[in-house]
Amino acid sequence: MTRKAAIIGGGVIGGGWAARFLLNGWNVSVFDPDPEAARKIGEVLTNARAALPALSDIPMCAEGVLSFADTITEAVEGAEYIQESVSERLELKHRVFAQIQQSHPDTLIGSSTSGFMPSQLQEGAANPAMIFVAHPFNPVYLLPLAEVVPSPASDPSAIERAKEILREIGMFPLHVRKEIDAHIADRFLEAVWREALWLVRDGVATTEEIDEAIRMGFGLRWGQMGLFETYRVAGGEAGMKHFMEQFGPCLQWPWTKLTDVPEFTEELVDLIAGQSDAQSGVYTIRELERIRDSNLVGFLRSLKDRNWGAGKVLREHDARRRVVLPDPAPAGAPMIMAHMQVLPSWIDYNGHMTESRYLFAASETSDAFLRFIGADMDYVATGFSYYTAETHIIHKGEAKLGDRLTGSLQLLSADEKRMHIFMRIQKDGVDMATIEQMLLHVDMKAGRAVAAPKVILERVLPIAASHADLPRDAAVGRFTGQRK
Amino acid sequence: MTRKAAIIGGGVIGGGWAARFLLNGWNVSVFDPDPEAARKIGEVLTNARAALPALSDIPMCAEGVLSFADTITEAVEGAEYIQESVSERLELKHRVFAQIQQSHPDTLIGSSTSGFMPSQLQEGAANPAMIFVAHPFNPVYLLPLAEVVPSPASDPSAIERAKEILREIGMFPLHVRKEIDAHIADRFLEAVWREALWLVRDGVATTEEIDEAIRMGFGLRWGQMGLFETYRVAGGEAGMKHFMEQFGPCLQWPWTKLTDVPEFTEELVDLIAGQSDAQSGVYTIRELERIRDSNLVGFLRSLKDRNWGAGKVLREHDARRRVVLPDPAPAGAPMIMAHMQVLPSWIDYNGHMTESRYLFAASETSDAFLRFIGADMDYVATGFSYYTAETHIIHKGEAKLGDRLTGSLQLLSADEKRMHIFMRIQKDGVDMATIEQMLLHVDMKAGRAVAAPKVILERVLPIAASHADLPRDAAVGRFTGQRK
Repeated sequence: MTRKAAIIGGGVIGGGWAARFLLNGWNVSVFDPDPEAARKIGEVLTNARAALPALSDIPMCAEGVLSFADTITEAVEGAEYIQESVSERLELKHRVFAQIQQSHPDTLIGSSTSGFMPSQLQEGAANPAMIFVAHPFNPVYLLPLAEVVPSPASDPSAIERAKEILREIGMFPLHVRKEIDAHIADRFLEAVWREALWLVRDGVATTEEIDEAIRMGFGLRWGQMGLFETYRVAGGEAGMKHFMEQFGPCLQWPWTKLTDVPEFTEELVDLIAGQSDAQSGVYTIRELERIRDSNLVGFLRSLKDRNWGAGKVLREHDARRRVVLPDPAPAGAPMIMAHMQVLPSWIDYNGHMTESRYLFAASETSDAFLRFIGADMDYVATGFSYYTAETHIIHKGEAKLGDRLTGSLQLLSADEKRMHIFMRIQKDGVDMATIEQMLLHVDMKAGRAVAAPKVILERVLPIAASHADLPRDAAVGRFTGQRK
Repeated sequence: MTRKAAIIGGGVIGGGWAARFLLNGWNVSVFDPDPEAARKIGEVLTNARAALPALSDIPMCAEGVLSFADTITEAVEGAEYIQESVSERLELKHRVFAQIQQSHPDTLIGSSTSGFMPSQLQEGAANPAMIFVAHPFNPVYLLPLAEVVPSPASDPSAIERAKEILREIGMFPLHVRKEIDAHIADRFLEAVWREALWLVRDGVATTEEIDEAIRMGFGLRWGQMGLFETYRVAGGEAGMKHFMEQFGPCLQWPWTKLTDVPEFTEELVDLIAGQSDAQSGVYTIRELERIRDSNLVGFLRSLKDRNWGAGKVLREHDARRRVVLPDPAPAGAPMIMAHMQVLPSWIDYNGHMTESRYLFAASETSDAFLRFIGADMDYVATGFSYYTAETHIIHKGEAKLGDRLTGSLQLLSADEKRMHIFMRIQKDGVDMATIEQMLLHVDMKAGRAVAAPKVILERVLPIAASHADLPRDAAVGRFTGQRK
């Protein structure tokens, strides 16, 4: 049965939560008295639909159903998880929790608050044990971090359940061991923000120069290693202790104004707003959002390639959702070996899937087939592999961003050394391209074709026999430019 | 003539500078009395050689010559630029500058200092006007940022010359308008470091949890937009002023301990070093360096794809170094249309260039040819383009990471609607793959092949005529699996 989440408060943060749940197959009911709520959430959802699937290497599940409730009680009815993202006013949050717990005292309630500690949120609640902080980061549908902060009054098993749900929607729940003002990350943001205001106020740097100082240097480091691991590397072989001893004394240097709060005058606001307009005003906020999301997708995908940091979270999320493919029906029918989605990096300047990506899609298909017959990574590690000797591609249609493709394979013939295969890359059952290939079984060290071992041939030859009588496409055996 | 840079002080930072200059074709002379200097710089250079070329989309120029000098005077002889990266001791830096300026008072001297202001560096110098801060970020060979800080005594034209040199080696010189302790970026690092020490000391978070709080969330944002642009987006359509008004009051909140400096005890050092070991000790520092560099290459390449932030710097650096190709000799010889280098993302699990990348290399070649005949991006914008209808690839060799490849094109035949082309992807003049293609001139809106316009045919048909008598490879007209 489809699971349900309730979202109380539908701004940018609430909308981001809604998008994450929906795109992970949950039904979502939103309560927000703002008459603009549906439009605002719709805009966040549009962004999320364009970005989140680009992180997935397996087909996305069917999107859940979004609905808007007239009351909090209606929104939380049947919900397994409730996320509160209303304004940062404690008495308002208390009213929301009281309303929820009147009818649903035992449902998980995460709060997006950055300003309040869980023990403050729990004050006067019917069931404080179910209320905790689940603090996300914008854009919620892309950034994995959720700071999960319990208080001593929280139910530990409820917290574990909440963390598991957050993992199920692809997030990284960071369990904060002690409640503290601003949790962890926002304490850093606060420190940097304060220093930045001084620099602008004192005319040392503009907003643009400060942004460049961050994104041309340490910002790139922090996105993949954070603070301590970066410094560990900087310390070199001598280690962290050495680094500390070098860098520790600097703390005594008089180079910070953090001890003061800059006076928050209208002039300062105007100065910063004006500089920001000069820096970024050429883009609308929507454009900046799309640029940001595209950049984040790029970062996250490169971390995913490397199975590192936030990319590790993406891989684990894929693994959770990986559906075991039904048996690819080796007997007497082409085998569907791959399900793919056209990713942003597959697109050329025409907006179409670039030609080399059709061959890439075919490689995904033949790789899955090679794994199926036992010529997998472990086999390659023994020094043998199937290499592609020759390829013939016929382009028949144009795939576009987000299209779902399947790759099917027909084994035209096989002997000890060779496999002659024919693949179709299809969208909605229609050929986008056909790819005919000759694969050779190779001794990689000797650099020549050799007979495949019995254990593989015992998988291959029966498939070849069962495919022998399948109809052959007109493309088979055709040379480039030949008339049909 | 090859230009020369002198590097005074050859640690991780000096080595990074040396690598940047060398890989951009400069000769480099290093002075460092440390007997280990050559080994240490060699290690940085090995890392740089593995990473920096992966950011370039044009062939790297020939590496400069690295030498080690016995004296400062010998090192700076004939140097156009001098970078000082000795220990952070002011009297030592003063001695170095005095030594340099005894013989070379008019050469640019950048200092890597994070701790001293330029006016401090200039104290007592023979020619203070030539001394300035050029503060880089580790790894210097990958991160573009260099904070360039003059003092009022600096020579403005010297500063402009220094910035131009930094751009020439692919960096982003950030001109800091007012000298200030720690320049700009390190003030932020200092603020975060201070807060982090408190969190660890008070048992709120471990080093690992703090790193996760950064790299799963705001670290990813900062690597591409920095602080203010990120908040501008968060402020939404209401703009930066609205954001400031929302977030400003938080500054009064009591959630920072930045006003105090944590006592720097041995216990605190041990606590942090121990947590860091638990977090990252499974990797050696060399491994962490390679992981970091690979991640940074991934981030930088995705920003380069998007022409954004640090990626824009990479594109501009490519554009500076782009050599105008010699005329591709259309008359009577295959045309060399593309020079490429095998990038990390082109490699498969066997360590070889993945098969779809041979087709990608062919696309680079045919795209350059299409631009050559006038079917460029502007032409595509008018609604017409050449589409690939059919492709035949024969794999003949294996390219590996870093290999330099050329793509040549022979126009087998052409008529109003079709071009039949044959491409060779070669390494050192030897075929790695041959690619035969049929291209159709398409009206993209109508979705059908139409005659190309006269302006293009006038370019195409003479080339076809001049290629008509060229020998044809045995692969032409061959179908998949056909015996030669």
